[in-house]
Amino acid sequence: MEGLLFSESDQIGDFALAVDFYELTMAAAYYYSSLNEKDMKKRGVFEMFIRRLPANRSYIVAAGLEQVLYFLMKMKFNDKQISYLKSHEAFRYVDRDFFEYLKKFRFTGTVWAVPEGTILFPNEPIIRIEAPMIDAQIVETYILSVINFQSLIATKASRLVNAANRKPIVEFGSRRSHGPQAGLLAARAAYIGGCTGTSNTLAGYKLGIPVFGTMAHSFVMSCKREEDAFSQFSRIFPTGYLLVDTYDTIAAVKKILGLGIDPHGIRLDSGNLLQLSTESRRLLDNAGHSQTKIMATGDLNENVIGNLIDMHAPIDSFGVGTDLSTSRDDPVMGGVYKLVAVKQYPASGIRKSSVYNKIIYKIKTSPGKQTYPGPKQIIRIIRNDKIKRDILALEEEGNNLKDGVPLLVKMIDKGKLACYMPSLAEIQKYHIQQLKLLPKIYKKLEFVSFPVEFGKKDQDDNSSI
Amino acid sequence: MEGLLFSESDQIGDFALAVDFYELTMAAAYYYSSLNEKDMKKRGVFEMFIRRLPANRSYIVAAGLEQVLYFLMKMKFNDKQISYLKSHEAFRYVDRDFFEYLKKFRFTGTVWAVPEGTILFPNEPIIRIEAPMIDAQIVETYILSVINFQSLIATKASRLVNAANRKPIVEFGSRRSHGPQAGLLAARAAYIGGCTGTSNTLAGYKLGIPVFGTMAHSFVMSCKREEDAFSQFSRIFPTGYLLVDTYDTIAAVKKILGLGIDPHGIRLDSGNLLQLSTESRRLLDNAGHSQTKIMATGDLNENVIGNLIDMHAPIDSFGVGTDLSTSRDDPVMGGVYKLVAVKQYPASGIRKSSVYNKIIYKIKTSPGKQTYPGPKQIIRIIRNDKIKRDILALEEEGNNLKDGVPLLVKMIDKGKLACYMPSLAEIQKYHIQQLKLLPKIYKKLEFVSFPVEFGKKDQDDNSSI
Repeated sequence: MEGLLFSESDQIGDFALAVDFYELTMAAAYYYSSLNEKDMKKRGVFEMFIRRLPANRSYIVAAGLEQVLYFLMKMKFNDKQISYLKSHEAFRYVDRDFFEYLKKFRFTGTVWAVPEGTILFPNEPIIRIEAPMIDAQIVETYILSVINFQSLIATKASRLVNAANRKPIVEFGSRRSHGPQAGLLAARAAYIGGCTGTSNTLAGYKLGIPVFGTMAHSFVMSCKREEDAFSQFSRIFPTGYLLVDTYDTIAAVKKILGLGIDPHGIRLDSGNLLQLSTESRRLLDNAGHSQTKIMATGDLNENVIGNLIDMHAPIDSFGVGTDLSTSRDDPVMGGVYKLVAVKQYPASGIRKSSVYNKIIYKIKTSPGKQTYPGPKQIIRIIRNDKIKRDILALEEEGNNLKDGVPLLVKMIDKGKLACYMPSLAEIQKYHIQQLKLLPKIYKKLEFVSFPVEFGKKDQDDNSSI
Repeated sequence: MEGLLFSESDQIGDFALAVDFYELTMAAAYYYSSLNEKDMKKRGVFEMFIRRLPANRSYIVAAGLEQVLYFLMKMKFNDKQISYLKSHEAFRYVDRDFFEYLKKFRFTGTVWAVPEGTILFPNEPIIRIEAPMIDAQIVETYILSVINFQSLIATKASRLVNAANRKPIVEFGSRRSHGPQAGLLAARAAYIGGCTGTSNTLAGYKLGIPVFGTMAHSFVMSCKREEDAFSQFSRIFPTGYLLVDTYDTIAAVKKILGLGIDPHGIRLDSGNLLQLSTESRRLLDNAGHSQTKIMATGDLNENVIGNLIDMHAPIDSFGVGTDLSTSRDDPVMGGVYKLVAVKQYPASGIRKSSVYNKIIYKIKTSPGKQTYPGPKQIIRIIRNDKIKRDILALEEEGNNLKDGVPLLVKMIDKGKLACYMPSLAEIQKYHIQQLKLLPKIYKKLEFVSFPVEFGKKDQDDNSSI
């Protein structure tokens, strides 16, 4: 019987197998092909980027890097997993040398990435990895799944925050997230994207994200009278929010006032939120409770919130669940992880020769899936405190540009952490700074194309340097 | 620095906190309100069901139960978590009795559910829990997130299997799933829904699901010539599939034939799949390789596959990624978990009195969110080996119906496992049997309404029995 979510031992090792099987067959193929070229070591340069933005988005928010770095530094295979692989029919003709190699495998590559919270555009690398081909290949699925998902949710959260015009948004979506871990990762990404907090208690416990909760319909329903629920709850939680829509919202607000409760807040969860918030505000103000907050929840998204804001609904904060935690209007960040160059070095012990020190740019030409060759850097041009445009240049070209900010920084150097890891609060702050730098037009809920220029050398194919 | 995915200790305890915070505030409210009624014990009956089907679906496939049962039997809170809760501002006025209670908390409820793989319709309970109010409330988020997600993916897989007309479908979507755990759970659910296997190696290792993989573009690109990639790969993996679309699909098939390789299979990943599969088949057949399989991948979904099948494309199997693992066209299973009855019993030590043994049916009347009161059973009426209709009856009414099959069975009895846990292969077989029982019209890709009748007593509100 499988919980799947929390086997008690060897979790890191288990997640090392969270890869598409072809990464492992490729690893074996690389292993034997490098044996065929004994005097040469190949290192691959891979970049993760998106080809197209999710629907109606003008930018994405990079997120998930911390989990990826942790994984890269910790992943390894244990004996039980290697026995499983050995027993797989596909590996029938693979000899024990490869499995001995896997047993000792640790990631030894170098990683550049944009800091979490960075605003990015299509074709711009979120992460770039230079590593022996096997190391770079074997981590593909894990990197994609973590960064695609968290960036998807951080992007959605950022849209919601833009729509809400500085009113707080709390992430409430764990029940519709794609499993418990997705709920936790969504809470993290939503916070990076600017949400005030989450309802996910584990995210508070593990990550220090502010955790919020109100009361449930079932509690109201379990009491004999709605009044009993309100008075019992506010006795125990004087700073809690009372849920008023179980039977009739306005009647419930009147009951609260009739009981003489001074509620910290009320939550509206259904019906016409403009009308109900206006009427509730009026009732509360007339009874002297102008400090009482009104929170709205119930299938909200950026369009509904934008409309409520436009119509000046007297709502103080929003709880957004399903639409945020699944990025419901477009649940896919289509990030890909592509080989952009192969570097060839002489193997140790072989006398150095300039012939071997070469870099070959790689390009894929499948219809609709072309890649831009070469290791790249993103140069962001900022004028008058606003992002003007980005230049996507080859690494060495980008590093030599005098103007602009290079966005990719070294995070792991030959398998070891090489950067400061910011706290989640710092990441959120950085994203909010990024939003301030972004011209208003890109914060609209409809797509507006941002100018990304390609550096001069960028279209060369198979050029050797 | 947080991996979040595999902290090495105390995993079960950690996931006990994977709840919306309001489940815990509610728990405290129930705790103190039950103290106020010292002579009475309340048990809640909650049902999880969907109000509406995901887009264009005519049925859903229940999945995720095994993980839920495991969680219910194992979940508990540890000291560190309880310290975290104590320190939360909302619990400022909650005394230590409640936290002592939480420390000893184990789930003691009784659980009925439909077996995984069951075909269900709106309003039909997937799971019903009868438990002390706290036990039933505290597990809500976890149950919803696991069952919503796996049922969503099993349903999507079942659609794909219907569209593919018995040709095998392999789940390839981990890189776009909502995090690594979602990838693992999606592989499980897709297999339940009828997929042949997955690319997720962890799903093979942990769950015994058949694992498939072919070769990657990056391997082709890392070799000097495409031919080198084909010959190296097929030497190591003679039963592997060769990926032919990195540069030019038809040219690649010709290269394979020119090398004298007898390929087990080829994979097409882009372009016009009808045209490319037809031309590749012709080339392979003409060269005497009529045994070579053709697999198609690349942004497939049930509509594309249905069209390819209709046009008799000579494709032997399909790999479906993003659309399957995120249920892209509708990424939300909107299951809810609602209180349908409260049972009141005398507390132990109090003399039994019939007054106390009562059940109160509960109904919520928020606009658009009404619930059907009372604990329910689903009775499935089968005629000539086809599902004719379902009757959604009150539990005692349903159990007395002479005709039809009751779908909900007892899975946990007072906290202890009370059922046989089928293997994943058995679950898949059961779902395929269910599909055979389902009239063809409900297997179309457009919504067709299935008749679910409500039992007679079902609309009574607050009736006591």
